[in-house]
Amino acid sequence: MTEIPHAPIAELVGMDLVDLGEGSATFALDPAERHYNPLGTVHGGIAATLLDSAMGCAVHTTLDEGERYTTLELKVNFVRAITEATGRVLASGSVIHRGGRIATAEARLTDEDGRLLAHGTSTCLII
Amino acid sequence: MTEIPHAPIAELVGMDLVDLGEGSATFALDPAERHYNPLGTVHGGIAATLLDSAMGCAVHTTLDEGERYTTLELKVNFVRAITEATGRVLASGSVIHRGGRIATAEARLTDEDGRLLAHGTSTCLII
Amino acid sequence: MTEIPHAPIAELVGMDLVDLGEGSATFALDPAERHYNPLGTVHGGIAATLLDSAMGCAVHTTLDEGERYTTLELKVNFVRAITEATGRVLASGSVIHRGGRIATAEARLTDEDGRLLAHGTSTCLII
Amino acid sequence: MTEIPHAPIAELVGMDLVDLGEGSATFALDPAERHYNPLGTVHGGIAATLLDSAMGCAVHTTLDEGERYTTLELKVNFVRAITEATGRVLASGSVIHRGGRIATAEARLTDEDGRLLAHGTSTCLII
Repeated sequence: MTEIPHAPIAELVGMDLVDLGEGSATFALDPAERHYNPLGTVHGGIAATLLDSAMGCAVHTTLDEGERYTTLELKVNFVRAITEATGRVLASGSVIHRGGRIATAEARLTDEDGRLLAHGTSTCLII
Repeated sequence: MTEIPHAPIAELVGMDLVDLGEGSATFALDPAERHYNPLGTVHGGIAATLLDSAMGCAVHTTLDEGERYTTLELKVNFVRAITEATGRVLASGSVIHRGGRIATAEARLTDEDGRLLAHGTSTCLII
Repeated sequence: MTEIPHAPIAELVGMDLVDLGEGSATFALDPAERHYNPLGTVHGGIAATLLDSAMGCAVHTTLDEGERYTTLELKVNFVRAITEATGRVLASGSVIHRGGRIATAEARLTDEDGRLLAHGTSTCLII
Repeated sequence: MTEIPHAPIAELVGMDLVDLGEGSATFALDPAERHYNPLGTVHGGIAATLLDSAMGCAVHTTLDEGERYTTLELKVNFVRAITEATGRVLASGSVIHRGGRIATAEARLTDEDGRLLAHGTSTCLII
């Protein structure tokens, strides 16, 4: 299995890589007040961090020896507000397209009942 | 001037609102190892958090009494890797369009010499 | 079944609505030289037109009496060049999220063998 | 000056390249009923075609001998409905970032009084 090195951001934000497959990855986070924006809900940047991590790791699992990737762009839709009351959230990313130079991925952020909270897509450059 | 309430996310990530105008806002952050992804650079989610904050606050400054906003979507392009060596980074957001129900905004993330690191756009719903 | 009124754009571009379900829609087009950009492939705007149509119609099928929608934004990834040799292409859209005020949708553009050519997402405002 | 080859799409849609600078390009179109969607306004795909053309040509002007580009993704915000009554519309694109492998661009679609109708960003791969 692909090994994803430890990342300081995971500790800062409080997210964990909980599943990793061929072309897929899932991160989990327990929303807390420290993630809140001025509106009293989890900041969109936290959802973006989770989705970006899930998509990046999904692409990472497709890399051959000597290949690296870098994320070119990220697009996130926020469809439901997230608070501490939401409980644990899961960001599941999967590769949509894997070309020689470009990979695209998508991810969904849900609560533990599968209710959709946010979703996104991403474009990565394979180097 | 519009008052932007304190946000826990700002403390978590280490970002500060350093400028606020009519339809514009700027956040600053000193990149550090705790922001790093597994690739050894600042995680894209941190850039997204800064840009989202700058755009959201820019839209916030256009709100009338009794109006609120929520961010519907966010798009970020990452154009240069950010590390501790980059030094202080600035995310400056400004409103592109302010309609009755919808506002759009854009933001650029630069280092202190003005070199572009990332840029984004966002769509907000006015409630 | 939802009735989608005739659209002049469909005739201009040469696309046909070939399938319509609850929360989904598919458009077909036969790529031709008249769709080409200066690079000798089908212009990205044509793929965008097909994906936007598929996502808009998918959202349209979820409207209640007296509701209308307007597309706020559209994001498209182009993953393979399209030419006359590609043969018939199909853009299939489906609703991801249907809230009271906002709907999001996604769509994939494929050839008749199911090879992915482009994909996109969209945010719509329900009025 | 960079020479942009003739494109069949320009004739199909009825758009003209009216200005080309170093890192910038402008297309014009007279909206007509043949561009309409089922809602009775210009289809978002037409706005996307104009913005994509303006951004692609802007990037094209930065190419060195032997370089080509391909558009990886396109994001468009629609901020005002366009009809025949809008009169001539102008899509002005400009390069935001030009790296060795990646270029990003932005564009705005306005009427002749400068009122914003749509805006977008794009990511291109330099080959």
